[in-house]
Amino acid sequence: MRIVTCQAPVNIAVIKYWGKRNEDLILPLNDSISASLSIDHMCAKTTIVASPDLKETKFWLNGELQSIDNKRFQNCLIEMKKKANPNLECLKWNLSICSENNFPTAAGLASSAAGFACLVSALAQIYEVKTNISTIARMGSGSACRSVFGGWVRWHKGETSEGSDSIAIQVAPETHWPEMRVLILVVDDQKKTYSSTSGMRTSVETSEFLRYRAEKIVPQRTAEMVDAIKNRNFEKFARLTMQDSNQFHSVCLDTYPPCFYLNDTSRTIIELVHRYNQFKGETVIAYTFDAGPNACLYLLEESVAEVIGMLNYVFPPKPSIISDYFRGIKPPTITLDEKLTSTISNYQQKEGKLKYLIYTKVGDGPRILEVSEHLLTESGVPKS
Amino acid sequence: MRIVTCQAPVNIAVIKYWGKRNEDLILPLNDSISASLSIDHMCAKTTIVASPDLKETKFWLNGELQSIDNKRFQNCLIEMKKKANPNLECLKWNLSICSENNFPTAAGLASSAAGFACLVSALAQIYEVKTNISTIARMGSGSACRSVFGGWVRWHKGETSEGSDSIAIQVAPETHWPEMRVLILVVDDQKKTYSSTSGMRTSVETSEFLRYRAEKIVPQRTAEMVDAIKNRNFEKFARLTMQDSNQFHSVCLDTYPPCFYLNDTSRTIIELVHRYNQFKGETVIAYTFDAGPNACLYLLEESVAEVIGMLNYVFPPKPSIISDYFRGIKPPTITLDEKLTSTISNYQQKEGKLKYLIYTKVGDGPRILEVSEHLLTESGVPKS
Repeated sequence: MRIVTCQAPVNIAVIKYWGKRNEDLILPLNDSISASLSIDHMCAKTTIVASPDLKETKFWLNGELQSIDNKRFQNCLIEMKKKANPNLECLKWNLSICSENNFPTAAGLASSAAGFACLVSALAQIYEVKTNISTIARMGSGSACRSVFGGWVRWHKGETSEGSDSIAIQVAPETHWPEMRVLILVVDDQKKTYSSTSGMRTSVETSEFLRYRAEKIVPQRTAEMVDAIKNRNFEKFARLTMQDSNQFHSVCLDTYPPCFYLNDTSRTIIELVHRYNQFKGETVIAYTFDAGPNACLYLLEESVAEVIGMLNYVFPPKPSIISDYFRGIKPPTITLDEKLTSTISNYQQKEGKLKYLIYTKVGDGPRILEVSEHLLTESGVPKS
Repeated sequence: MRIVTCQAPVNIAVIKYWGKRNEDLILPLNDSISASLSIDHMCAKTTIVASPDLKETKFWLNGELQSIDNKRFQNCLIEMKKKANPNLECLKWNLSICSENNFPTAAGLASSAAGFACLVSALAQIYEVKTNISTIARMGSGSACRSVFGGWVRWHKGETSEGSDSIAIQVAPETHWPEMRVLILVVDDQKKTYSSTSGMRTSVETSEFLRYRAEKIVPQRTAEMVDAIKNRNFEKFARLTMQDSNQFHSVCLDTYPPCFYLNDTSRTIIELVHRYNQFKGETVIAYTFDAGPNACLYLLEESVAEVIGMLNYVFPPKPSIISDYFRGIKPPTITLDEKLTSTISNYQQKEGKLKYLIYTKVGDGPRILEVSEHLLTESGVPKS
């Protein structure tokens, strides 16, 4: 039998994926770009046991047994087996798959992206596949293809109808922009009201802005974003990131019926970021929001102390949860400048509007934690 | 001396005006369509005294003296005088102008539209101008040109650079669709955070969706809306109204920095309307939101009782303000169907999310209440 444990990162897009040109193959209408975040702070973790002794293939997610008659799951499994050497013995074995996320599932925090990237990376180990597996991760969950790599990743929409060229490629490794930091502000960790799959479908069917965005706006914006990342131009990176987040939510609102992911707290965060950048006289924070109310802030390490101080001032944590409030890297502390507090005093919120805050950075791609091979002897005893 | 008192209606657009092609002349990027609401329930009221004895022209808005060095105010005054018979004696007299709204000013309830339509209509009486004065109202506040008429009104964007063809024309009189009713749900009656003038300017400068909307989407949508109104096709009218409201707010979100007018209560109203239409199996309510969080619902008279019952269930009024809560037409009462309450129970809000509710209908254009002429004798005593 073979045992593999793998971890894969969450990725947060700075050019958003919204809208498929093919629902079955999960082929997108436009390119997208993301950073993979440090596995140390947020990740999916999957253990696969492949064994001739397993009577059936089973899959647990966060401790709950899932149906494997799920088309997306099956697509990943079937496609990965196709890529393997057909003589590989373990191809015939059943699998036990256990997957878990160390952060809330389906709350718009890219849990399915990390999960499918992790599944596919673990399967690649089991089946000894060495090629670019992002196309297979994509069939599980579109944005999962970007979590197959670390650092800065671009998902090329591809041109072919069967999707072989709809793959993720690393734009720059995680070491490229070492000062980059990420703050995840968790506004709500409940499951989201509008699933992104159905929201996206309704957008494709009803939003006249969506196609215009995909065809006329994103190509240029993606090129500019690659350039901003390659040149570590934070000002440009931040503006494009915020504009693209807003435009994605704009498309959601142009959808009929509209889908809303931002709430009043998200909106306060957006206003606060613009206010703070204005106060600093330069763009030092960028926000981006996926299909949920939680904010992801990109900023450079030098800004973190003051920004966390400001967040604590505007969004005071509930005293009862303070020990669990800061997650990830230990945050620096600072005394806020008086001019700043007077500038932002009108944004002050009631306690508890933020559930918790994850301080993290751009990180590496999937990581194999354990590979063990127990070859059974003919008598059924593992070889040592 | 001459005294004129005039009332003018609020109008609520169903195809939205957002974006100017000329800031000074207030020429829009696209056509828009609105209904003027009954003057009995919401209106601006303006009294103008023209007299050779007045030492200067003064203007009061809601009891507060305003500067008359306001370009928009001056444009209306100058243009109206140009249209008058140049021999008219009162052209030389100064004016005392008192204007008031019987609803909150600058809270996204079309107060400036009603106000400028009223000012211009009153001036037209004073100066005996009989032509289409919508072009002059437009110079005060773009959408004011639509409040110059009752019923259903289309503001044609016009093609000329000086704006002579950017005028409002009635599509259908207020008697055309007698069953149509309007509910204004006042979420917030404070002055808005983002003025529509500056929001609109930032949208023109930064939103790539705005121009696409104005050029490619609105022309077709406007034609369809005229058709829906002419044929009293509520289903089509409602869908277009909601889509256009959402698209306008979508453009606001695509603006950089984004401008937000909808809040969590607005969003709940939107979701509730879609849920209710789904429950009824047909579209019986349409929402639309201007540059503020307040909802305007268009619906037919037969739906009003149940919809008000539903609103009371989801948005219970504060007991302390109940006597002042329902304004306009006296609302019918009804006991809600149990199936309906169970369908909408998850939308129930805390008390007081709605400040008050105005029940009204489509109404007539500006109304002259009083015209009196006191010609002074040579000895200074008014002629009887």
